Amino acid sequence: MLAAPMAEPLRIALAGLGTVGAGVIRLLDTNAALLRARAGREMQIVAVSARDRGKDRGVDLTRFDWHDDMTEMAARDDIDVVVELVGGADGPALTLARGTLGAGKALVTANKAMVAHHGQALSELAESGGVALKFEAAVAGGIPVVKALREGAAANAIERIYGILNGTSNYILSTMEASGADFGETLVDAQKLGFAEADPAFDIEGTDAAHKLAILAAIGFGAKVDFAGVECEGIASIRAEDIARADTLGYVVRLIGMADLERTGDDSCALLQRVKPCLVPKGHPLAHVTGATNAVVAEGNFSGRLLFQGAGAGAGPTASAVVADLIDIARGEIGAPFSIPSAEMIPMARAEAGHRTGRSYLRFTVADRPGVLAELTAAMRDAGVSIESLIQQGRQEEGGEVLVAMVAHEGPQRNVARALDLLRDSDSLTAPPLSMQILEG
Amino acid sequence: MLAAPMAEPLRIALAGLGTVGAGVIRLLDTNAALLRARAGREMQIVAVSARDRGKDRGVDLTRFDWHDDMTEMAARDDIDVVVELVGGADGPALTLARGTLGAGKALVTANKAMVAHHGQALSELAESGGVALKFEAAVAGGIPVVKALREGAAANAIERIYGILNGTSNYILSTMEASGADFGETLVDAQKLGFAEADPAFDIEGTDAAHKLAILAAIGFGAKVDFAGVECEGIASIRAEDIARADTLGYVVRLIGMADLERTGDDSCALLQRVKPCLVPKGHPLAHVTGATNAVVAEGNFSGRLLFQGAGAGAGPTASAVVADLIDIARGEIGAPFSIPSAEMIPMARAEAGHRTGRSYLRFTVADRPGVLAELTAAMRDAGVSIESLIQQGRQEEGGEVLVAMVAHEGPQRNVARALDLLRDSDSLTAPPLSMQILEG
Repeated sequence: MLAAPMAEPLRIALAGLGTVGAGVIRLLDTNAALLRARAGREMQIVAVSARDRGKDRGVDLTRFDWHDDMTEMAARDDIDVVVELVGGADGPALTLARGTLGAGKALVTANKAMVAHHGQALSELAESGGVALKFEAAVAGGIPVVKALREGAAANAIERIYGILNGTSNYILSTMEASGADFGETLVDAQKLGFAEADPAFDIEGTDAAHKLAILAAIGFGAKVDFAGVECEGIASIRAEDIARADTLGYVVRLIGMADLERTGDDSCALLQRVKPCLVPKGHPLAHVTGATNAVVAEGNFSGRLLFQGAGAGAGPTASAVVADLIDIARGEIGAPFSIPSAEMIPMARAEAGHRTGRSYLRFTVADRPGVLAELTAAMRDAGVSIESLIQQGRQEEGGEVLVAMVAHEGPQRNVARALDLLRDSDSLTAPPLSMQILEG
Repeated sequence: MLAAPMAEPLRIALAGLGTVGAGVIRLLDTNAALLRARAGREMQIVAVSARDRGKDRGVDLTRFDWHDDMTEMAARDDIDVVVELVGGADGPALTLARGTLGAGKALVTANKAMVAHHGQALSELAESGGVALKFEAAVAGGIPVVKALREGAAANAIERIYGILNGTSNYILSTMEASGADFGETLVDAQKLGFAEADPAFDIEGTDAAHKLAILAAIGFGAKVDFAGVECEGIASIRAEDIARADTLGYVVRLIGMADLERTGDDSCALLQRVKPCLVPKGHPLAHVTGATNAVVAEGNFSGRLLFQGAGAGAGPTASAVVADLIDIARGEIGAPFSIPSAEMIPMARAEAGHRTGRSYLRFTVADRPGVLAELTAAMRDAGVSIESLIQQGRQEEGGEVLVAMVAHEGPQRNVARALDLLRDSDSLTAPPLSMQILEG
């Protein structure tokens, strides 16, 4: 292969040598020739830093300068870009990120928490220094969805972004679907198999998905990153029975992150961002997404519905995204991190969703005694919720607990909330009720 | 919104004002403010050209300079980029493309035939002039899959690219699946509904998919564009019975374009490119792609399987892709059209696929008389094809025609070809036999 005269190598510092860090080193080694051709330059790791120098990571680190203090790397003159794989929204990762961008160097990060919390400020810092800030690996692992929104779909006013943004939750839900098992035992199995962390809270409570959603929404809608504005509900209260009943009704249950813009005036918008378990019609592409896979849908006003799907985590896919960012930087493709300049990103009001209409699934666990169904249906009536179907059947739990599941007709979401409110203090309910929206379109 | 000081506008000439051309004008009008923010510059159509000046296209053209001769636009000093939407592999489109790039201007095209046939030469011309050649709209309509391969998955050695690349064929196959109707009547309905052209040959014979596949393969594998190297088979011989039998066996039928690299020596590879109807397992994401939708899978050595799905044609989606290219150009993101410099693209040998193993579906239409089944199964035996299952049932055609469908065990593809060869001259067959591979993975 006749190579054109090469530009200077891209000199990289790597902070954090966990599975993803080791994956990045392995990728740069394995695909070196290819990367040289595609980037037009050598991609060269110069220095690395991690907590434990002695740990065996399965890759040769002796080639690289070692720094006990990773912030030193940001100060070196012979480094072009720092890859931050330390993790954590604040602390050392943030210090490194600020130091790197402040020193006029490019930053690549896989840190969704940091970008969700501090992306706005870091982006301003990057732009004022004229350097790249890239975070493809922070959203949906190996799927190039940041690029897809920032560039591929850039011609469109984005009408809605939604998808399956957390692999652990999707693994658990689709496994429950296949096995009929309950949430608790499925989580334990997932932990044994490495699909869930020892402390799974971030994943199963929706926080991880919310981080990703806030980043996607900022790019798609030109809104200032507003992680705190994401309404968030996890999957821990979903029972095997909910999944079985959804199935009977023609749906599967998925944890869906969704964001859209609502016009609130001639010249003003509000942003709705939420992560919630939803019923997804079996004919919808997201219904076929099983296991730890992620999938993102972006609806553009000209493109129509675009779907991007792939592995949402793991050393290989995440390294693929990190190195894609490095290639962009090597090619000189540096632009506003969130697609438009930070100064033009709008501090968007948060949308009130109560008036939005839709169909809902509601499930109650109630005491097995006369009058309970009358109490439930009266609450629905009083809240203006019209019942499309109701199932009271299936397994009867010990202690006389009965499950009542219903689907409400299309109606305002606030009515469903009001119905649940009316029943809040009822001693007929043996557990808090569950409501899930039915995904349309 | 406080805008940063703007760069000069990007001055655009538009050649071809069919539905896509009108769609581009409409998009630039509708999303003007958004595009200005994202591109950092005004996107300004300066001049247009088409065959018929008088035709009503539903958009106001009086704002633009009109050229009867579109090549004049390439020569104008006040044009930065020409958008070619004329179509046709050669002729005026090619003349315009050469003229534009030769004059040191950027070219954006939706012309898959031209890129498949002349992409290599045009890319060399663009690179030698240091200008952009972009063709996102040439592959899979609004899906940003050229960008996904060129940039998003650029860190990976691509192991396989495959997908549903022709909306018309997919519309016909998935409609046959839903209705049980035969190919001929479904095509007629598709034509009435605008999903198939009056002359559908390019779509149903696989040529259109082959154009797109050759482009994707060049980007993914760094091979010189080799459209002539695509083995191509269309969908016209697929019968309702094939789809019904595939269904019974757990498959759907899809027209699949597929490309991969085969290592033929320590330092050499051969490229396999083919477009063929295949049996797709119902659990595979491509099995759920219905209607005129396109979907592309890229398997990277680190990313794993990535799937990109969306509208494969239409004014809006195609305009979305064209304008995404314009935004890239406005942002100064100009690089090798096929990801690596043209000079480094390898003239790849064509792979011989006969030794590849896989499972196959075979269908024969035979005369209803004794001994025919013995003749078929003897041919299978003699060719070394082992039969996994065989169905001789279903509707008996007039004139005593019977359909025999079988699934062959995993084995070399050349054995299946040999079996069909042995039966070529048999007067037991009332029509040419059909074989389809079963998609793995």
